[in-house]
Parts: sequence; structure tokens; C-alpha cells
Amino acid sequence: MENNTIQDVVSELLTDSGDVDSQHAVIEQWEQDNSPVDIALLLESLPLTERLSTWEQLSDAMKVPVLVEMRTDASTSILNNQDEEKLLSLFTGINADTLLELQDSIPDHLLENVLGRMDEEQQNRYSAAQQFEDDEVGHWCDHQPLVVPAKTKIKVVMRLLRRHLPPHSHVIFLVDSRGNWDGTVRINRLFGADPTLRISEFSEDDFPSLNAKEDIYTAANKVAASGESSLPVITDSGLLIGRLDMGTAYELQGEKAESQLMAKAGLDEDEDLFASVRKSAQNRAIWLGINLMTAFLASWFIGLFEATLQQVVALAVLMPVVASMGGIAGSQTLTLIVRGLALGQISKANLKPLLTKEVKVGALNGVLWAIVIGLVAGYWFDSPMLGVVIGIAIVANIICAAISGIFIPVILDKFKIDPALSGSVILTTVTDIVGFVAFLGLGSVFLLG
Amino acid sequence: MENNTIQDVVSELLTDSGDVDSQHAVIEQWEQDNSPVDIALLLESLPLTERLSTWEQLSDAMKVPVLVEMRTDASTSILNNQDEEKLLSLFTGINADTLLELQDSIPDHLLENVLGRMDEEQQNRYSAAQQFEDDEVGHWCDHQPLVVPAKTKIKVVMRLLRRHLPPHSHVIFLVDSRGNWDGTVRINRLFGADPTLRISEFSEDDFPSLNAKEDIYTAANKVAASGESSLPVITDSGLLIGRLDMGTAYELQGEKAESQLMAKAGLDEDEDLFASVRKSAQNRAIWLGINLMTAFLASWFIGLFEATLQQVVALAVLMPVVASMGGIAGSQTLTLIVRGLALGQISKANLKPLLTKEVKVGALNGVLWAIVIGLVAGYWFDSPMLGVVIGIAIVANIICAAISGIFIPVILDKFKIDPALSGSVILTTVTDIVGFVAFLGLGSVFLLG
Repeated sequence: MENNTIQDVVSELLTDSGDVDSQHAVIEQWEQDNSPVDIALLLESLPLTERLSTWEQLSDAMKVPVLVEMRTDASTSILNNQDEEKLLSLFTGINADTLLELQDSIPDHLLENVLGRMDEEQQNRYSAAQQFEDDEVGHWCDHQPLVVPAKTKIKVVMRLLRRHLPPHSHVIFLVDSRGNWDGTVRINRLFGADPTLRISEFSEDDFPSLNAKEDIYTAANKVAASGESSLPVITDSGLLIGRLDMGTAYELQGEKAESQLMAKAGLDEDEDLFASVRKSAQNRAIWLGINLMTAFLASWFIGLFEATLQQVVALAVLMPVVASMGGIAGSQTLTLIVRGLALGQISKANLKPLLTKEVKVGALNGVLWAIVIGLVAGYWFDSPMLGVVIGIAIVANIICAAISGIFIPVILDKFKIDPALSGSVILTTVTDIVGFVAFLGLGSVFLLG
Repeated sequence: MENNTIQDVVSELLTDSGDVDSQHAVIEQWEQDNSPVDIALLLESLPLTERLSTWEQLSDAMKVPVLVEMRTDASTSILNNQDEEKLLSLFTGINADTLLELQDSIPDHLLENVLGRMDEEQQNRYSAAQQFEDDEVGHWCDHQPLVVPAKTKIKVVMRLLRRHLPPHSHVIFLVDSRGNWDGTVRINRLFGADPTLRISEFSEDDFPSLNAKEDIYTAANKVAASGESSLPVITDSGLLIGRLDMGTAYELQGEKAESQLMAKAGLDEDEDLFASVRKSAQNRAIWLGINLMTAFLASWFIGLFEATLQQVVALAVLMPVVASMGGIAGSQTLTLIVRGLALGQISKANLKPLLTKEVKVGALNGVLWAIVIGLVAGYWFDSPMLGVVIGIAIVANIICAAISGIFIPVILDKFKIDPALSGSVILTTVTDIVGFVAFLGLGSVFLLG
């Protein structure tokens, strides 16, 4: 049973034939063999009823760590279905960082209660973190880093380190009496050091740090770029409030990548596999609505050529080809530019050479595919002129797509709108309209009568 | 000048007014203030001519580290334009890991030459790495980890550690006389230890490890999940050949996310911002060709209804609306399922409840938007029956999109085809065709004559 996958366990739990005892054994084994991350993935793979019954069978010690690893929508689905008293006892002794992770999933009236029961030190940490926006590193960093007063004797630090080294702690942060950051010591420097010296003797003063108000994703990149396993998080006044380590940086990067892929489809990054039908439908309706408006806009432009369409029905048959080729070509340029913008590589200065290059690429591919499409269309409808018309429309639309693929993301970025999200909707609206108008317009001129 | 961004420097270098001396000063300053990553980003932001002249002005010590950080297409563009003798001297003393990173950018005849000049130890490392496929961790791991023989005295290790601790090395890997992995020691355990003891006294035997044949991205996730800063990489026979650390894991995750976004647009992940027009056009032509075939397929289905379109031209005007709503709804389901597949959450057992949920979500949103679209269309063309026809087509297409959004990625995954890449092309082909056929077919029945 050891190398069970999530799929195996889900199948065991969802099969009617499995009796309760054997299901219990399966869950117990899974909990024993796996980390909270894997248990969270398992719970998310189950419809609500089975999710709740599986949850009930987890050991109490595992429940909070598993909740932390779940998507907000999924952990909310569990917490909303629990007895209040049970939850309060579950959250007894919770620390500030864990509560910060779970605060969006815990029902509001309960949150107050949980907070009230925390010890004072953790309450203070919690409220300190709350002073930062939830896209700032001061909110999400580890608020209990390995910190010692700068005056501490090396032998004391060694005793401390020997007992326990938290993950990614190759350095110790020093603080002065007011809790301000006062240097950093690499622990390897302490080997062979005189144990009666003060730790500050080995302090490195130019160690990099993060500002608490920094964007979390930028901060994660900075940790990775520093080559260090963790960086201290400092307020404007110099207070050391926590650290961001490579483990968290990795998680943040993964979440960001996932949320970009989800956002491109108009989904919430937290959307649960088994969210309620109502909630899912609601989440997705807005994106459908926005796209509907752009589709109607394109239709309105087609409508301008009703008379032409009636006479040359081949235009109606072929018009999706013109629009879609433009959309694809434009998305390619757009994706390249969005990447460049994210990396800070696009500026006014290199926009012109970029534009030149993309237009040339567009012209080359445009002409190539225009010939192919023109030949097919001309042959299909037995009309060489139709082939010429669609060929010209294709070239025009692909070149226009290249230009739009550059300017749409650049302009959105200027207005601080994420081009990765809305760029492609606007782009395909443009390429649809240009494609339809060019094709039907040219058709009206050259194919009528 | 200290807080220059890439944009500032690019603008300085691309402006005609800037004289050579001031440009030289700008590059010098940038090199001084920034890491190889940032210098690589700067070079990639420049058209070829300026890229080459900026490259010339970098100090020799910086050139190889910068090349390593560049995308393959961009570093190739530089290496292809260099004098052979100069390059050979640049690569003098290169180590195996660096050469592995650069081997795809170095012209073949030169690679032989560079290899021949490496010292024997590095040559052996290089050929050992070559025994693994380039998606295996044995190829890409750090081949010079911190390793000591298990018999080493602690005082020797302490001396070694004190001098230098490589990044993310909170543990030391022990090897036996044949180079096989023989335990792992957390460096903090050594504080206060008797220096005359052997290091193996502190060895931990159940430390996690990676198999050298493991997929690199899976391996990166395993490092992150382990909570350790680095894991040893072991062959089937037990040989320790390297390690994978959190720094590399972070890079790999970032590259994977980027390549997914690029692949979705049919771009090569290495595509250079200023690739040559010919190369870019070539790269992108295939994707345009594939999409053209699907577009023609959809057109062929529209062509079946030529007679109907001729009589009811409103159908031609509205047909993109039906297709695009299906495409959007389907992409939402598809994206959710692709994420679930990537996390191992989708199985035969939960496919049915998932399908039920998604069809219900589709039905709900389908009916909602069908009413809106039906009213608009009916009013626009003054034909209530047209409103009914488009409404029914929308509901049918959105429900069909939900079903396709589940089965297309699941089936692709069964055949080991990445659903993140090809899923959406197939899906929109299906929703286009179903949308056109449903709408035009219903139109033929209810709106003709």
C-alpha cells in the first residue's frame, strides 16, 4: 500500500464497495506516509461529502498543517461545515503565522474568538503583520526568524544552534536592544571561534535585506537572486520583523505561475476542483460576460456587410479563417512582449527596433500563409479573385496583429493593468474586427456583382 | 546613476546622441552595480548590433557568467559572432557545470576544442553528466557538491567549512571509498562536537535523496517539499554524483512556468526578443499552420450550410458569438482540469462527480447567457425565433464545452501528450464546430423560408 498515489486513494474512497473500516485504514496509511501538502491535495480531490468524512478521520495534530496547505476555497469548504467548539479547540495554541495563512478561511465571528485565545506575544505578531497589505512581504514572511541579541556570547549561540536549526537558516540575524537589525552572521564562521567572544564579532554588515513593504513576488525573486537561503525583512525604521526563505520563495513563485494560468482563463486562482456549482458559475460568469461584449462588437462589424454576405456566401464560410490567423499571430507577439515587460526589458528606446522586427516576421509569415490560404480558397470556391481577396486580408490582419501585439501590452502596462490577464482579450477583439472588416470590405469592393 | 533600470541603460545605448565614452561609462556602471542575471537581461534587450558592442565592453571575468544566464538563442547570437581564438581564451579554465549550461550555444567545432583544453577531472564530470538525458536531474545538478569521505575527522571538516560554505549547503554529504553516498551531516550538529571524532558519528541515515534519472522539474519540487536547502543526487548503483539545491530548484520552476506560457502561444521558450526575422518566422510558422488546419475544418462545417446562410444572413453575423462563448467556457473547465492533472488529483474515480459539477456549472451559465444573447439577437434582427435558435445553440455549446474541457485533457494525458500545450487548440476546434453546426443546423430547421 506504500506507493499509493492520490488517484488510488480517491478511487478507494469513492468506490461504494469499500467498507468503512478499509477506508479508514487507507486514510490512516496515507496520513502516515505523506506530508501535509499531499494530504491537502487528496482532500481537494474529493467531492464535499467525502472530503468532510476523510477530514474527520485525520489525526488532530495533522488538521491545522493540512488546512494551511489547502487552497482558500477548499479549506473554507471544510471550516464552514465544522462544529464551532471543535474548531476552537483545534486552533488552541495556533501561532501568528498559521493564523495569517488561515484567516481568509475562518468564519469571521470565529476569528475573533481564536485571536482572543492566543498568547500575547503571538497576538502582537499577528497585529504587526496586519499592518501590511496582503501583497507585501511584511504580511507573509516568517515572523519568528532565528534572531539573537548582538551581545550574545558565541557559546550560547552554539548551544542554541546545535539543538535546532530551522530550515534555510544558514545565517543568524542580530538585533540591538530595540529589536532593530544589527548585522548578520553566517553560521559556518563560528566553527573554531573562541566561544567566549560576542557573536557580533563575526557580523557581516553588507548582507542584503528586504523592505517590509516590498511586493511579495519581487521579494521572492530577490531572495533567489541573492544566493542566500533567507533574507531578513526590515521596516523603514530598521525594525527586524521577520525573514523570507527559499522555501517560501519557491511556494510564492509556484502560486504566481498558477494564478497567471488560471487568470488567463478568467478563473480565480483559488477555484476549488469541487467548488459548489453556484460559486463556480458565479466566478466564471464575469469572464463570459466580458467576452460576450467583445464578440457582439465583432458581430456588429460583420453586420455592416450584410448585403455583401448575402451575395457572396463564401465570405461567411471563410471569415473565421482570417480572424483566427490574426489572433494566433498576435498572441505570439503579445506573449513575447508580456514576458519582456515582466522582466523589465521593454522600453521606449527598443520599441522601434522590436516593432520593425515583429512587423517583418508578420509580413513574412503573412505572405507565406496568404499564398496557401489564397490557393485553397480560390480552388474551393472556384474563384481566383476570392483567393486574392482573402490573401490580402490575411497579410493585412497578421501585420496588424504584430503591431497590436506590441502596443496593447505596452499601453496596458503604462496604465498599470496586467497585460498577461487582459491583453489577449483586447488583442483578439482587434484581430477579429480587423480581420472581418478587411476581408468583407475587400470582398465588397472586388467580388460584388 | 546608481538606481538605473534596464530601460534607462537601453535608452542610453540606443540613442544616437550618446557618444561612445558616455556609453562606455554607462555599461561599466551597470556591470559594477548588477549581477550576471541583470547584465544578461540587459544584453537580451538590445538589438544584435548594440548587443555585440555592449558585450565587447564587459570585463572578461563577467562574460562567461553572463552567457550562462542568457537564453540559449541570445547567447548563441553572441557566440556566433565572435572570433574563435578569443572564445577559446574566454573558455579557458571553464568547469564542467558551466560548459553543460553553454553547450547548446557554443558552435560544435569549438565545443570539441574547449573540451580538449579542460582538465581531466572536469572532463570526467562533463562526460558523466552527458550520460543522462537533458530532462534528468543527473544532467543538470551541481556536479561539485560539498562532499567528504565518511572517515574524515571533524576538525578537518570544520576547517573546510569555516573557509567557505557554498550556497544552500546546510548539510554535508559523506561518501565511502568508492564514492557512494554514505550518510549526511547537518552542519549545526558539529557545534561543540569533539573535533577528534570522525564525521560519520553525526551522520543521519534517513536523509532524503534524488535519483539521477528523475525528471528535473519533479526533482525541484521534491527539494522544495523536503524542507532541506539541497538534496543529494544518487545513481541506481548508489554513486553520489551531485546535488540539487533550492537556488536551482527556483530557477527550474521559473523556467517551467515561462515555457508553459510561451508554449501556449506556440513559441519556443528560448525565443529571443531580438531573434533574427527568419528564425522567428520559422519558429512561429508551424503553430500558425496547425491553427490554419483547424480553422479550415471549422470553415468546412460552415460550408455545409451555405444555402441557409444565403437566406438568413443574420446567422453569419452572429455565428462568431456562439463559437466564442463555447471556447471561453471550455477553456475555464480545461484550465481547472489541467491544473488538477498536473497535481495528480484527477482519476477515473472522481471524473464522474467532476463531470456532473462542470455540466451543471455550464448549464447554469449557459442558460443565463443564452437568455441575454437570445434577447439581444432577437431584438437586433427583429426575429424572436432567431433569439430562440441562438439561445439553444449557446446552451448546447457551453454544455458540450464543459464535457470537452474535461475529456480532452484527460485523454491527452492518457496518451502522454501535455494537455497544457495542445488541449486548448483541440478544445476550441471542438467548440467552434459544435457551435457552428448547432447554430446553423437549428437555423436551417427553424428559420428557413
